[in-house]
Parts: sequence; structure tokens; C-alpha cells
Amino acid sequence: MEKIKIILAGPRGRMGKEAAFLIHNTEHFELVGCIDRINDGKALAEVEGFPNSLKGKIYTDAEYCFQNVEADVLIDLTTPEIGKKHTELALQYGVRPVVGTTGFTEEELEHIGKLAKEKQLGVIIAPNFAVGAILMMKFAQMAAKHFADVEIIELHHDRKLDAPSGTGIKTAEMISQTRTSKQQGHPEEEEQMQGARGATTKDGIHIHSVRLPGLVAHQEVIFGGEGQSLTIRHDSYNRASFMSGVKLSVETVMKLDMLVYGLENIIE
Amino acid sequence: MEKIKIILAGPRGRMGKEAAFLIHNTEHFELVGCIDRINDGKALAEVEGFPNSLKGKIYTDAEYCFQNVEADVLIDLTTPEIGKKHTELALQYGVRPVVGTTGFTEEELEHIGKLAKEKQLGVIIAPNFAVGAILMMKFAQMAAKHFADVEIIELHHDRKLDAPSGTGIKTAEMISQTRTSKQQGHPEEEEQMQGARGATTKDGIHIHSVRLPGLVAHQEVIFGGEGQSLTIRHDSYNRASFMSGVKLSVETVMKLDMLVYGLENIIE
Amino acid sequence: MEKIKIILAGPRGRMGKEAAFLIHNTEHFELVGCIDRINDGKALAEVEGFPNSLKGKIYTDAEYCFQNVEADVLIDLTTPEIGKKHTELALQYGVRPVVGTTGFTEEELEHIGKLAKEKQLGVIIAPNFAVGAILMMKFAQMAAKHFADVEIIELHHDRKLDAPSGTGIKTAEMISQTRTSKQQGHPEEEEQMQGARGATTKDGIHIHSVRLPGLVAHQEVIFGGEGQSLTIRHDSYNRASFMSGVKLSVETVMKLDMLVYGLENIIE
Amino acid sequence: MEKIKIILAGPRGRMGKEAAFLIHNTEHFELVGCIDRINDGKALAEVEGFPNSLKGKIYTDAEYCFQNVEADVLIDLTTPEIGKKHTELALQYGVRPVVGTTGFTEEELEHIGKLAKEKQLGVIIAPNFAVGAILMMKFAQMAAKHFADVEIIELHHDRKLDAPSGTGIKTAEMISQTRTSKQQGHPEEEEQMQGARGATTKDGIHIHSVRLPGLVAHQEVIFGGEGQSLTIRHDSYNRASFMSGVKLSVETVMKLDMLVYGLENIIE
Repeated sequence: MEKIKIILAGPRGRMGKEAAFLIHNTEHFELVGCIDRINDGKALAEVEGFPNSLKGKIYTDAEYCFQNVEADVLIDLTTPEIGKKHTELALQYGVRPVVGTTGFTEEELEHIGKLAKEKQLGVIIAPNFAVGAILMMKFAQMAAKHFADVEIIELHHDRKLDAPSGTGIKTAEMISQTRTSKQQGHPEEEEQMQGARGATTKDGIHIHSVRLPGLVAHQEVIFGGEGQSLTIRHDSYNRASFMSGVKLSVETVMKLDMLVYGLENIIE
Repeated sequence: MEKIKIILAGPRGRMGKEAAFLIHNTEHFELVGCIDRINDGKALAEVEGFPNSLKGKIYTDAEYCFQNVEADVLIDLTTPEIGKKHTELALQYGVRPVVGTTGFTEEELEHIGKLAKEKQLGVIIAPNFAVGAILMMKFAQMAAKHFADVEIIELHHDRKLDAPSGTGIKTAEMISQTRTSKQQGHPEEEEQMQGARGATTKDGIHIHSVRLPGLVAHQEVIFGGEGQSLTIRHDSYNRASFMSGVKLSVETVMKLDMLVYGLENIIE
Repeated sequence: MEKIKIILAGPRGRMGKEAAFLIHNTEHFELVGCIDRINDGKALAEVEGFPNSLKGKIYTDAEYCFQNVEADVLIDLTTPEIGKKHTELALQYGVRPVVGTTGFTEEELEHIGKLAKEKQLGVIIAPNFAVGAILMMKFAQMAAKHFADVEIIELHHDRKLDAPSGTGIKTAEMISQTRTSKQQGHPEEEEQMQGARGATTKDGIHIHSVRLPGLVAHQEVIFGGEGQSLTIRHDSYNRASFMSGVKLSVETVMKLDMLVYGLENIIE
Repeated sequence: MEKIKIILAGPRGRMGKEAAFLIHNTEHFELVGCIDRINDGKALAEVEGFPNSLKGKIYTDAEYCFQNVEADVLIDLTTPEIGKKHTELALQYGVRPVVGTTGFTEEELEHIGKLAKEKQLGVIIAPNFAVGAILMMKFAQMAAKHFADVEIIELHHDRKLDAPSGTGIKTAEMISQTRTSKQQGHPEEEEQMQGARGATTKDGIHIHSVRLPGLVAHQEVIFGGEGQSLTIRHDSYNRASFMSGVKLSVETVMKLDMLVYGLENIIE
């Protein structure tokens, strides 16, 4: 198999570092360049903490990088603001972007979509790269056709500020697309203590957020029906969980000629 | 909606009784006849333990029942031997069979399939009617495309004689169809106590069987990948869990003109 | 071993019926009498649905029963109001009561306690006879000495009216006795949807109530600490779960000469 | 509170590093010295990766360290061989050892026990410092008095060589001390596939070992009884889980005047 030539933007970030090791560990991936704010001109291998195989040079000027390096794919794990610029630049230079960010507005997505179509190039933008989490949401959506009663429990470490989690809300939205809307529980049920029944979406799905030290990122979707229950659970133990999705995206983007938003649309 | 007219064979069995209540509780279902070994000529409602609404008459002669009663669907929850006869009879009289049994050989299925085609009638034969269990198997099969590492834990009451359970073995088979075959675990792993790593299919999937009093019928399929795990679990608490599948089958068989074997083929 | 002679009050109730079968199935238990509103003078065995071994006669007059039957233990599974009367009567006639009800006030308990002391007779009054549930609460109380961060998830069928469940609230109370009080989660955490973080006790423990058809009665207590979590879970699948506690109580009450309230005080 | 003065042996090992951070993060702990093979004379703070607060000096000669540094407690997280020498030395110099190793023979433990008694000094030696895991085993031991039916499922990453895990075997041993010995499952149960029912201890307890990438170290002990089950689960997500036990040991060893082997004996 010919190697896929990759430019990595943001190699020193927590996700970026994982991506660098993914490239190192994948035989048919090759790092041909990096975009970063420092270390201009060095090979990534020269920066502390990176393996010797990563010979791709670092560019502090993104456009200059695309001009000088012949690449197939850009993996961008920077910030939303910078990620958008890189995405456009990459497309202009014929490179397929794989972007991990939630920061794109609908207008921006539409714009990127047009650009991708013009250039006949694949683009993948995904807020979540954990294949297991995507499958959990997909399966929940499928199960909801058969079970209208469902509750979501998401469990995270206690340094998390928001409740419910983004994945919890996203899961409820995906379920709502296939589930017959209903208010769950007994019509006359009463909370003896406020909040006991969790948050309720306008569609009637309950979401419960647990926060405990030691936990990482976990979610359980429980469906109930006559005499049975069906539970789909995803446990994320560390950041490496995202790399399976990045790998799949790099491989898939090579076969696309359009924008795909969300990993759930490339996973079957 | 017009009511679906149903003949129920085996109303006094444990599953049959649940099916009788399913008909009673479903507005668009109507019991028009019963096939049973006793109580010839009585309405099912007259037999102790059945609700008043079930006016369908009981026939001890199956053929006589089909001759005299105009029905859409036969629900057969008898034994394999009797179920086969009823299935053929039903098709001859233009009634669509929904049969819950594992007893058909491949030749018999082929024969029924031909008959169904000739008559342009739907038939559904299913060894397992629990929709949640079917979804668990389907999801496991889908997840196996993305995670080659998987183990199955099935947990049942301690009066069960066989290990692994039929569902456990079936799940492993379905997973094998999509999973890249591999021997799992460390190549040099050693059992300090024999059996610790469970049963292993020829494809390298491990199955563990737990037997404890109090338990009913439970199964967990756990997939592992870099930094994450994905778990699909089905809990069956009582026989009512099968009725969602019977209901779905009755509704679906009305739209079919062929034989479908296995609920997984009508559930999306 | 000499048999323990038992009077059963309330044999036709759902719990009473289980207790009758418990006596039938336990070699060293013997039914010597019953208290019920109907069937005066009949043996319980003559009432439909009870096994032949249960020869104890039914009395509609409780006092008359105690006067005529020589018994060791009264199992009372009636209502709170009637249970109180039976408890006093039993003590007066030298019979040790095992009572399953939550209806006693503190004054009433004090009164029974005095009576028991005078008569030098054991009494066990318990709101919950499920040994597994009691152990869950005990273990949670012990774990809370070591882990101050804990959340409770209780899951019940969707016909339940109150949230949180009595067991959930009781568990939080028992934990509070050993746990260092603290507000859990991030001090600046925010609910994007109201109720997401569940109910919070004044001591800072979060309780989440899940209600789904199919479920029976389940509870999970999750403790979190640096790099680890400890989970204690009880699943109650049916009423038989209470009988282990009734059995233990009958055996234990024979050795007591005082009142014990709550099964947690006789289980080690 | 006066600070506890600590000598740390093995600061650069994986566990040692966690212990260094534990000392840094605990207000009433103070690092007064280190024993290591390199960096003689440096403060630990000067070694890369350690926080500034850790001013304790490094000694490559253990005896010289004990002669020159006034300390209360030795935390030893080196190898069994070296750990034994340090333990003796510490006791000779009036320092209380907290040692994390499995390497002591019974004779050696007896010897250390005598020494501790002579010197009237506490010693804690523990193969496992994860408080949650210890509690899981303790609770399992307690529950086994009430439920004779129990199975153990332990789940680890797939680089683990042995099955069952040490903790799994230890748990079964502890359960056997309180459980009425019995062969579980149906007396006529049959394995259709060899190993399905897991490993069986001579006492009749089944242990199942799951190995999957992504997992860390997890164990579930499931008890079953009439109509109910009780599950105790410990999840270890990373090495930090051991530090709660090291902290507790340092605090407890100060109040002891004898040897305690195993954390289960100081945790209530």
C-alpha cells in the first residue's frame, strides 16, 4: 500500500501528540510536515518527546508549509479559529483536511462544503473522534425505534464544569430523531427531592450527570421495555481512544470528494 | 386501523399465555380462534386465567379451525413437531404463520420457504423473540467491524444445564461474520487455573458463563480498543420480554410474501 | 434441630404467600397457625395455591389464635395498623414477633422495646428484609469512611410514584453517619439543563432516580477516589428476595431477648 | 498537626513518583530524604519531573541516609530484595517502614515482626495499596456469610500474562474463609465448549478472566440469592489509585507498635 502523506497541525497539544504517535505506529502513514507556533525548520523528531521516525519538518507559517510540502492529508488538532484557516488553505493546495473541532458555524460548514465540492476533495470535520462513543450514539438511535423508554447516565471526573456533557446532549438529540416522543415515568410521579429524576429534554428524555474523582469519561444509555432492558455503555479511559477515529478518518477522507461532518456519517 | 385477526396455538403454555395477554392488550389485534388439546368449543375467555375480551373459540382439531375461522395470522407457540404441521396448514388456508421455535431443519425451512413463495404469503419463524436480545446481537455484529477484540459474558440462573447459552454462541457466530479473525489476549498468556480465560471459539472469541441463583437471563458483549471499551448488555427479567418481538412479527408478517427466519432480519 | 413453630399473619398477601412457601421449604420451620380475615378453622393447605404441608389452622381472631396455639415465632406481614396489635398480643402470649412494616412511630417502638425487655423476648421489626439491600447499605456506610465522594443511582420500574426511592434516601442517611460532609463536584459546575446533577442531600450527596418499564428494583452506590472507583450494586428481581431476610430473622429472634429495629443490626 | 517526616526509597520508579507527588500534595507530610541509585547529594526537587517543594536530599547509601536524616517513616517502593534490607535498616534506626511489595517469605515476615516488637515500632507491608480493591475484598468476605453462591469476573488489559489475576485469587481465598463450601451451578450442568464456566477453586468458586485492550484493572464479585444479586466492583484507572492506601498507611504506622501485613488489617 502506498503511504498516506500527512501534515500535522498542533503536534505539541495533548491530542496532537497522540496523533504524532498514531502516525509513528501506523505503517502506511508518513509525517511529511508539521504546522506549529515554534521550532520552525526543525524536524518533529528533534523536539523532546517525539520518536525518531517523525522526520517531517515544522513550519510556523501554514501557507508556506502547504506550498513546500507535497501531502495527501492535513490532520488539524489546533483551536477552532486556527483550524478553520488551515482547512481552507489545505483545500486550496489540494490537501484533504481531517479536523477535530466543534467550532464551525453552519455557514462556515456550508462554505467548506462548497469549496470541497469545487475542488473534488474530501474533508472530514468531527467534534468527537472516539469510535466507541460514536457507535454508542448510533446504536442508541437504532434501539430507540423499538424502545421509546430511555434514560441517559453520563459519568465524568469532578473537574468537569458542564452538566450534562456534550455527548449526553448529542445522544439525546440523535435518539429524538428516531424515537416516538413521550413523557416517560409515571404521569403522577413526584420528586420528593428536587432534581432526583434528572434533566429532561423537551422531548421527554431524562439525562443524569454523575461527577466523581477517579472517573474519566463514561456514558450509559438504558432502554427499558416489557420484562427487559438494553444497555449501551462507552468507557473512555484516556485520550488514546480518539486515535482510532483519526486513523479511520485519514483513510476514509482519501476516498471522499465532499465534506462529511461527524464521524457517525462515515461509520457503518 | 383494521384489526389483525389472530389464531393462537398453545394458549395455555407459558409463552402462549403471554401471547394471549398481548392480544388482549393490543387494540389492533383480535383473537378469532385458538388451537389447543382441550376445551374444544369453549371461548378462551371461559378458561380460568384469561381475560373476558378473548372471545375466540378453541378448536382441538387444527384443520377444522382453519376451515371455520377467517384469520390473518397464526401465532404458534406449541412444540417444534406440532408447530411444523400448523405452519403448513396455515399456509394452505391462506393464514400467515408467526412461529416461535428452534426445531426446523434446513430442509424443512426450505420447504416452508417454497410454500410461502407459491402462496405469496409471509411467514416468520424465530428462535428468539426478545427484541432487546436481537438488537444486542446486531449491534455486536456492527461493532465488530471496528473492534476486533471482544469477549462475551452471559449470566443465567443456576438451573441452566448448558454453557455457553444458545444466545452466547449465536452472538459469537454473528460477530465472526464481520470481525477480522484473531487470537485475543497476550500470545504468551497462561492460565494458572484451567478455564480462567473461558471458552474460545475457533475464531478466537472468548465466552464466559456465569450461573447464580436469583439471576434470570443476561448477556454482556464487551469490545476493547485503544483507551476505550464499548459494552452492549441485555437483561431479560421475565417472559414478557418476548412479547415485543411477537407483536412486531405479527405486524410485519402482514406485509411479507416470503419466509423470514430470525427476528434479526426484520429488525432495522 | 428442633423445629421453630411459626404463626403466620397475612398468608394471602403477596409477601405472606412468599413466607408461606418459605416455611414449606425450610426443614426446621413448621407452620402451627395462621391469622387471616377469612377461612376461619380451615388449614392453610386447604386454601387454593398453598402446599399440602402447611397444616396450620387459620384463625380470624388473633387473640384466640395465640391462646390456642403453642408457637415460638409470629411472622407478621399484614398492614402497619394490624401489625402493631399482633406484635403486642404475641409478646403477651410469649411468642417472638418478626414484623415487616415501616409503620411504627418512635414512641411505639419504645413501647414495644419495653415490653420485650419485661418479657425477655426477642422482637425484630424491619422495613426491608432483602439481605442484599441491607448489605449494600452497610458496605456503603463502611466505604464512606475512606471515600468522601459518592453518588447514588437507583433504578425502578416506571409505575413507581416517588423519587428518590426510600432505599436511596436511607442509604444516603447511613452514608452521612460515617462520611466527612462535603459538597461534591467542581465548585463552579453548572447545570446547562436543570436537574442534571440529580437531587442533593443537605450533606452534599447526589441521588439519581431512573424509571423505566421492565426494570424491577436496582441500586448502585458509586464511590470515586484518585484513579479508582468502587461500586456496590443490588438487583432485586422479585419478591423472593425478601425471604432470605425473613428466614434469618426467624432464626435470630429465637436468640434475642430485646427489640431490634432494622435488619442491618442483626447482619454482620 | 506536626508534619510526618518521610524518607522515600525508589523515587524515580512508577509507584515512587506517585508517592513523591503524594508527599508534595499532603500538607502534613514532609520529604526529609530519598534513597536512590543515582543523584547522590542532590535534592529530589532538582531531578527533572519533581516539584520544587520536595527538598529532601538523595542518598545512594541507605544506611548513611538513616544515620544523617531524622525521619518518622520510610516509604519503600523499590524491589523485594532491596525493600527487605531497607526495612531492617529503618527499624534499627527507629524509622517506621511502609513497604509495598509481595516478596517477603513467612520466615522473613516473622523476623520483621519480632524486630518491630523489640523496637516497639509500627511496620506496614502491603502487596496492594488500592483502598478500593481492599474494601471490595473485605465486603466480598462479609457478603459470603449470607450468600454461598458467588462468581468472580476480573477484567484486565490484554498485555497481562497470568489468569486469573492475583487479586482474583486472593478474593476467592478471602471469601472461602467465611463462605460455606459448595459446588455451584446445576449439579448436571455441562460445558458445550470447554472452559465456559471459568476456573474453579477447590472450594467451588468460579473465576472468569477477561483480557481486552483499553481496559486497565477491574474486578466484579457477584453474589446471587433467591430473587436478588449483589455486586461489588472495583475499577482501577491508573496508578494514582494506590496512593490513598500509602497515605493511610503512613498515618496509621505512626500509631502502631507492631507489624501489620496486608492493608485489609488496618482498614475498617
